Amino acid sequence: MASGLLSDCASSSSCSIRLHQFKGKSRAFARPFGCNGSISLPLRNLSVKNCTFASNSTGWSLSAVSSAAMTDNASAIIIDGKAVAKQIREEVASEVARLKDAFGIIPGLAVILVGSRKDSQTYVRNKKKSCEDVGITSYEVNLPEYCTEEEVLKHISVFNNDPSVHGILVQLPLPRHMNEQNILNSVSIEKDVDGFNPLNIGCLALQGREPLFVPCTPKGCMDLLHRHNIEIKGKRAAVIGRSNIVGMPAALLLQRENATVTVVHSRTSNPEEIVRQADIVISACGIANLVRGSWLKPGAVVIDVGINPVEDPESPRGYRLVGDVCYEEACKIASAITPVPGGVGPMTIAMLLSNTLTSAKRIHNIK
Amino acid sequence: MASGLLSDCASSSSCSIRLHQFKGKSRAFARPFGCNGSISLPLRNLSVKNCTFASNSTGWSLSAVSSAAMTDNASAIIIDGKAVAKQIREEVASEVARLKDAFGIIPGLAVILVGSRKDSQTYVRNKKKSCEDVGITSYEVNLPEYCTEEEVLKHISVFNNDPSVHGILVQLPLPRHMNEQNILNSVSIEKDVDGFNPLNIGCLALQGREPLFVPCTPKGCMDLLHRHNIEIKGKRAAVIGRSNIVGMPAALLLQRENATVTVVHSRTSNPEEIVRQADIVISACGIANLVRGSWLKPGAVVIDVGINPVEDPESPRGYRLVGDVCYEEACKIASAITPVPGGVGPMTIAMLLSNTLTSAKRIHNIK
Repeated sequence: MASGLLSDCASSSSCSIRLHQFKGKSRAFARPFGCNGSISLPLRNLSVKNCTFASNSTGWSLSAVSSAAMTDNASAIIIDGKAVAKQIREEVASEVARLKDAFGIIPGLAVILVGSRKDSQTYVRNKKKSCEDVGITSYEVNLPEYCTEEEVLKHISVFNNDPSVHGILVQLPLPRHMNEQNILNSVSIEKDVDGFNPLNIGCLALQGREPLFVPCTPKGCMDLLHRHNIEIKGKRAAVIGRSNIVGMPAALLLQRENATVTVVHSRTSNPEEIVRQADIVISACGIANLVRGSWLKPGAVVIDVGINPVEDPESPRGYRLVGDVCYEEACKIASAITPVPGGVGPMTIAMLLSNTLTSAKRIHNIK
Repeated sequence: MASGLLSDCASSSSCSIRLHQFKGKSRAFARPFGCNGSISLPLRNLSVKNCTFASNSTGWSLSAVSSAAMTDNASAIIIDGKAVAKQIREEVASEVARLKDAFGIIPGLAVILVGSRKDSQTYVRNKKKSCEDVGITSYEVNLPEYCTEEEVLKHISVFNNDPSVHGILVQLPLPRHMNEQNILNSVSIEKDVDGFNPLNIGCLALQGREPLFVPCTPKGCMDLLHRHNIEIKGKRAAVIGRSNIVGMPAALLLQRENATVTVVHSRTSNPEEIVRQADIVISACGIANLVRGSWLKPGAVVIDVGINPVEDPESPRGYRLVGDVCYEEACKIASAITPVPGGVGPMTIAMLLSNTLTSAKRIHNIK
């Protein structure tokens, strides 16, 4: 069924599926799932480049969105994460400049990279570049694949004690011989800009508590909803995937804002039925084109966190990126949807910058 | 609508409701909600005294349950929390005896009570009695209502450093002039047998992490399901109420065991509809008789955490205790149900004893 070839999810009306959680930040090459046939709607049709958003002081006006970039018969508004992320980076840059001018403080983000995975190197390079763009100082440590856990811990300890560093990020996945929990736990909670410390997650789950940091990707999802004035309170939400870094914290965040949340996962027997009841769908399962148009409630808002490479012989790279949601179908049913790429993806780094800024302000007690 | 008088929830087939969260461990006197008319089925008919459970090495056999104690037309098996709690206490007592004989170790539980609330005094007295019954040493500190936060913190610090104390419990609610978070945070995580520390909750939410302690009431709910061999994996579950001490951790526990969980709360617009899809319902909202028979999927398993006093002029005390679930209706629809009282209630203290034993074994590194 999963042919591994570039496929058209619109060609198959139903499919038997099992969700699989994605593990860590870097996902294995995913094959299209539940989709057959060859491509009929290349993603270039779904480009958001022609899409104009009107921004105002409180958010983005959905009504002002052009439908020029949509596929035929598409009714959904495209939530342009790239444009929102750009705005956030500008907001961060402006605040970073104020901190420097008024207090002489420059926020700093330290990234520790172990090994030489190409994807991790790319992520780290992008983070470094984004920091520079907004005026955050970036610190980087590259350690060889076969260094010891102690060496990693030593560098974390140095950054924990360095007052010019306000955020520390350990690029995942770590080499297998290292204990990820030990390493992540060693990052000072005041500098844990990824928000993965269990204490942070506990505060996210508990009413009346506030986490120091909200994990970047789910925070980005919520920000997209907020800036598009999408009502959350009282709405039904389905979160697909229960990973520690996206699905689970996304569900907690939606519930904090008074949505009624159901988490759909690999053991859910009737995912379609549950997703079909949701006004808001956040999908973060890492399975290409899993969520079909028929899974969606008409008018639902869809936030697609998946970035899944599927083979594409027509692409120079041999593959292209698609989301967890079958976009070609979903954009005809949903009222708003994030594209892949250009949806949630750009928001993650924007939120990392925002968390680093927040950290610097908190550490220096600046409002 | 909510008359405040003893009422028969069977007399009204539908009602417009709003859920309200209950706050803290002690709840205010709750009036019946969504129920009209006068009583027709007094709770004495629902006594579980005549109900025989067959216990075996792995759990309780549902099929061996007599229906003698059920109301007319009732098909549900009554989950006898009193009997299960008794068995757990016996298991704990036996293990406590082994610890004493083999290692000379006696588990110790310290309880701090501030003020003179009658209900809190009763809870503390029951805990002390239960400790004595299983051989756990109980330590008690009673402080006056108007003592300072520092005095409470000082006593916690003494217990944190006392090697004969393996569990510390601060009876809630605390007087208003105290910062509950500060006080609860000061309890050493290794002795936080209530499991309310955010770090514990974070570990409960995160895959691949294990909390040191699971909060007692939700742990008791899960234990009732386990000991009755009720399958959780792949089932739909509805948790009614999202309190820090019951609803939220119960939802996390169900999800850890691969249920697909929806948390229903005060802002949920269609609670009946959601609950009706659930194979397992855990209700912990503190509203008498909220969940009607018509809310339940036929064959659902119902765990009723609510213990709500409703006025009852016929009772010597002037009130009687009912659950969140309209028992008279539910026992005709559900396949299994906990009564109130005698369901989840007795499990909470049993789990507290169990957590204290676990703590003593962990601190002394005993398997």
